Amino acid sequence: MTFRTTPVASLLWLCSAALPTFAASPPPMAQACSPGNVLCVEVTTDNDGRPSYAVLRDGRPVIAPSRLGMMFTHVPKFERNLEIASQARDSVDQTWEQPWGERREIRNHYNQLTVTLREKTGPKRDFDVVFRIYDDGVGFRYDFRRQPGLEQADIAEELTEFTLAEDATAWWIPAFEWNREEYLYHTTPLQEVGDAQTPITLRTKDGLHVSIHEAALVDYSGMNLTRVDGRKLKAALTPGSGGAARVVRATPFHTPWRTLQVARRAGDLVESSLILNLNEPNALGDVSWVKPMKYVGVWWEMHLDLKTWAAGPKHGATNENVRRHIDFAAANGFGGVLVEGWNVGWNADWFGNGESFSFTQPYPDFDLPALSRYAQDKGVVLIGHHETSGNAAHYESQLGDAFDLYQRMGIPAVKTGYVADAGQAKVRAPDGGVVYAWHEGQDMANHHLRVVTEAAKRHIAVNPHEPVKDTGLRRTYPNWITREGARGMEFSAWGQPGNPPEHEANLVFTRLLAGPMDYTPGIFGMHTRAPDGIATTWAKQLALYVVIYSPLQMAADLLDNYEKNPGPFQFIKDVPVDWEETRVLNGEVGDYVTIVRKERGGENWYLGSLTDEHPRELQVSLDFLDPGRRYTAQVYRDGEHADWKTRREDIVIEQREVSRGDTLPLRLAPGGGQAIRFVAH
Amino acid sequence: MTFRTTPVASLLWLCSAALPTFAASPPPMAQACSPGNVLCVEVTTDNDGRPSYAVLRDGRPVIAPSRLGMMFTHVPKFERNLEIASQARDSVDQTWEQPWGERREIRNHYNQLTVTLREKTGPKRDFDVVFRIYDDGVGFRYDFRRQPGLEQADIAEELTEFTLAEDATAWWIPAFEWNREEYLYHTTPLQEVGDAQTPITLRTKDGLHVSIHEAALVDYSGMNLTRVDGRKLKAALTPGSGGAARVVRATPFHTPWRTLQVARRAGDLVESSLILNLNEPNALGDVSWVKPMKYVGVWWEMHLDLKTWAAGPKHGATNENVRRHIDFAAANGFGGVLVEGWNVGWNADWFGNGESFSFTQPYPDFDLPALSRYAQDKGVVLIGHHETSGNAAHYESQLGDAFDLYQRMGIPAVKTGYVADAGQAKVRAPDGGVVYAWHEGQDMANHHLRVVTEAAKRHIAVNPHEPVKDTGLRRTYPNWITREGARGMEFSAWGQPGNPPEHEANLVFTRLLAGPMDYTPGIFGMHTRAPDGIATTWAKQLALYVVIYSPLQMAADLLDNYEKNPGPFQFIKDVPVDWEETRVLNGEVGDYVTIVRKERGGENWYLGSLTDEHPRELQVSLDFLDPGRRYTAQVYRDGEHADWKTRREDIVIEQREVSRGDTLPLRLAPGGGQAIRFVAH
Repeated sequence: MTFRTTPVASLLWLCSAALPTFAASPPPMAQACSPGNVLCVEVTTDNDGRPSYAVLRDGRPVIAPSRLGMMFTHVPKFERNLEIASQARDSVDQTWEQPWGERREIRNHYNQLTVTLREKTGPKRDFDVVFRIYDDGVGFRYDFRRQPGLEQADIAEELTEFTLAEDATAWWIPAFEWNREEYLYHTTPLQEVGDAQTPITLRTKDGLHVSIHEAALVDYSGMNLTRVDGRKLKAALTPGSGGAARVVRATPFHTPWRTLQVARRAGDLVESSLILNLNEPNALGDVSWVKPMKYVGVWWEMHLDLKTWAAGPKHGATNENVRRHIDFAAANGFGGVLVEGWNVGWNADWFGNGESFSFTQPYPDFDLPALSRYAQDKGVVLIGHHETSGNAAHYESQLGDAFDLYQRMGIPAVKTGYVADAGQAKVRAPDGGVVYAWHEGQDMANHHLRVVTEAAKRHIAVNPHEPVKDTGLRRTYPNWITREGARGMEFSAWGQPGNPPEHEANLVFTRLLAGPMDYTPGIFGMHTRAPDGIATTWAKQLALYVVIYSPLQMAADLLDNYEKNPGPFQFIKDVPVDWEETRVLNGEVGDYVTIVRKERGGENWYLGSLTDEHPRELQVSLDFLDPGRRYTAQVYRDGEHADWKTRREDIVIEQREVSRGDTLPLRLAPGGGQAIRFVAH
Repeated sequence: MTFRTTPVASLLWLCSAALPTFAASPPPMAQACSPGNVLCVEVTTDNDGRPSYAVLRDGRPVIAPSRLGMMFTHVPKFERNLEIASQARDSVDQTWEQPWGERREIRNHYNQLTVTLREKTGPKRDFDVVFRIYDDGVGFRYDFRRQPGLEQADIAEELTEFTLAEDATAWWIPAFEWNREEYLYHTTPLQEVGDAQTPITLRTKDGLHVSIHEAALVDYSGMNLTRVDGRKLKAALTPGSGGAARVVRATPFHTPWRTLQVARRAGDLVESSLILNLNEPNALGDVSWVKPMKYVGVWWEMHLDLKTWAAGPKHGATNENVRRHIDFAAANGFGGVLVEGWNVGWNADWFGNGESFSFTQPYPDFDLPALSRYAQDKGVVLIGHHETSGNAAHYESQLGDAFDLYQRMGIPAVKTGYVADAGQAKVRAPDGGVVYAWHEGQDMANHHLRVVTEAAKRHIAVNPHEPVKDTGLRRTYPNWITREGARGMEFSAWGQPGNPPEHEANLVFTRLLAGPMDYTPGIFGMHTRAPDGIATTWAKQLALYVVIYSPLQMAADLLDNYEKNPGPFQFIKDVPVDWEETRVLNGEVGDYVTIVRKERGGENWYLGSLTDEHPRELQVSLDFLDPGRRYTAQVYRDGEHADWKTRREDIVIEQREVSRGDTLPLRLAPGGGQAIRFVAH
């Protein structure tokens, strides 16, 4: 860690037009800039002692002065009557290594500004707002010391605002609706945003890209955004459980980081490591036991209604079916086999209830010890499954036993599930009763971390579905390996409109900015129960393995479909899940994107490119390839007549020799994509 | 009360285009129409058992299918898995008399549809949604019976939605901000509404006017609206106190009425009595002791910083100053004299605290018994004042003594005040402690009703400022005589931008749809501490006495200004505060309005007309005048050069003889108005 003086050139004059109150009688201001002087933050208080911050990029406001503050349920709020009592600066430039990830090395390079705000009258309580200012974004959090009048500090409302300095287009999903995080993205003017979840992505009139999110959501409620009016977004914390305060905390504590990624190119948002950098380092020590892998599973057939989770004539998790999957995984180089519906409870009316589930008792036609041995003998692992229907209280009552069992069975990863309507998760109340909770409230945030740390004790990785949102905690807990938290592929399996062609081009620049997603790609059987089936070409299905980062990556389709289509399946077999380096070559939010990644511990590069419903002709420079090497490019591209509506299966597989400096044309069909494996000679 | 059969013509086909799910496989639907078949309501459930309602006017959708439902903190929600178990109909046509009001007689004429929604599986709990369908609007509320699984039914979220069927312009103020209800109105596309308070007023593309509000807010939290996305507004209940649920209730109970006023003309919203009709009848018996009146007061001089509330060299509430006001009131026919700053507590740091206030101990220079006698001897009453700074807990500890004192002193009305930032009121928690509360939360709604009923026992009327919003409870508690609850005239007194010329033209069609407002008009001293001073002409100040309905109506200016300007002051002396009839002759939201009212128990009519910053030439037909009579119209109109910016005092006072059928041109200056007294011969 290095420390150096932060450059503090006065930017006051830059704000004088936008901030007449500053100009009239400048109150004390704190300000600091990023190491490369790209982004600057200014904190000030107005005549009523209301603190606000602003963010400038290259001297131009990105975030106009926006309120800071907090309302508590039992003690006076911090909102006005405040003054900047002191400020402190720090600088950090360090590089750290990810045990697994999109890239091996991450540089954490920022200037820190700590502003202490103090009440001007009365008890003169104070608190800090800590800003970490990077060239590619800003994180800030509140830090509350223990002091008289601020012991128990249950939060009624967080008053943090994000007022965009100019009009923008927004990509967002609604908050506080029933279906948790599983919505199609809206594309609207900023001024038409309602209640939004984070990350929300904005492109300003000026062409700047901004993502608002949070990092290190620990013992706090998830932040949503509500647009108060105009361009002003305000933090809207997820409600507390059982009618409690939004956050129940005693001092000292700090909030999660409120994050702003700011970039010229859309792809720079994807390349940014801001969220990870704002999380604490690995707290688990040696995590070599966390193994990224591809997997197949007893799963898609249930979504197609060919099998059932519940026991019965169509039960999916039978010994025979699981052995078939183990054989397939072993034969094709997959590391794991997920089995859902293995445990008793599915035959009950489990939805929104969850008490029927046992996490240790298999159905009689699923011989867990025998199947585990069978898998291990073939060099494959079983991936466990815990569906809770959101009943965290019930799950926690069996948590130790459940993980102990998996540890004994050599199961190194568990997919958890919280299928329940938003606000209908269940947690234990302080009085011992069970109360309703939101999937992203404080209690559920704590529950997930409890599961992750209990799993870590048994060297088990966790992949929650219907989870709390990702805020980069995989850095601190590397066994929190991936999660869902958006509309996955299964929405295109059901008897209702599925994911449209633009869905993945939205996800890359929104949900995926938060972290990995278990999207479950790789479908070749394009005709499902959904009216449009799978709304992509085959080539796009392959591209998803590069575009959508997940260290647990599923080949989700029925095994038959892979066996029948060995040509395109070869890419799924070849593509890795852990990376040395990642770059975004091009892309526009919701339209298209091209991402290249270099295999961790290997020399090969992989490219994934995809488009929405519009065809694209992209020129890609192969500057990312290592110099002085030749590569065989194994290309999986849309055929001439490929189209997500009419000819999804039209794929051309071909090879060509390439090297750094070459330019490659990418022709993407409507709803199409392209996947390339660059094999180094 | 009369009962008759409700006409139930099927309107299903009308919805088939808008509601494909209805057309596909029509689930059971409940529907009913208003007595004149103007408005119809349809309730249905979708394939997931989600109930929704829609409102049609003349067969065209006004409210598209919009969700109904409720989430609780401790018991399962009512949101899906519901079916229409039964429906019941009723019809009412009655006429009732207001003890005081905008009109003497009100017709309450509606068809009622009660829809029982029951869980399809599980415990099969049920609840009712009761719709009252008028020709000019719809009210609906939830009714929860006591039943297993629904005993304590604390509310996490009310799921009621209002999805406008077409785009609209919206007039609204933001919710959950710091300044309670005191904002200038936004005029934006519906799709740019953020978090809004009610009433919110909308004008659809089709030119229809819609107001969304609530009636009979009792033991529940006030409803705000949050725009989720598109044209969809969702109920956003005010948070509970001290981090509690939004509403804490045991069954049986029902919610307030959610109201939709729907009208072709903007003025029809103002003429509608829907909100009053949806409240319970007078619960107080003989209320002849509630006396509408005009009043002057020791008040405006504090806002101009000429006097202080606190004791000291500039103390306003001195014996001498109060006697001067009593003399003036007696000489000019005013019923009351308000005195603020009469009681100890103002010299402390009271803001946001309130514990310093005694509600029984006057300052030494204010001799309450002597002044009361002095007033009574002159046929005038004192109007009491209780500023609480939002500390309802402290106020309630003295409430009985405070009202006892006023009763002994013959004080028949009290202005209360709750000056504290939003969310910073204080109420008593169940554990005896004091916790923060929102001005419009359940605890404060209950507090206000407690104050009103305690006051009623002593025959005292209540006029709260910084109040809970008006939902028509004056019908049930006629001593709840008026209130503030919006930006009043004092905003134009302070050293900051005041109310712009459009403010009152907004208020008429928004805030005033809720009920009377103590706006405190009548300012002749146009130059204040505000940069623009009072942004109206004199004639508009006079028009406000007719346009803004309040049974307690202040002549707010310094007495000197009235004594210096006897000409225009004559209208303020003449204008009544209680009405036989009220009609809106013309108007557009935020632009202009002309209202006429007939004096209660008299023969004279009064007209008030006002405009925003634009001048207007209006033609008014005098059809409202009683037939066969002649009237002397005493006209107070803008002079030729009148302008709110340059010549506010340019007023012409003239007389002309008129009768029913005449047409009167009204010329309104920029920011101007006109007031006319029609004296019957």
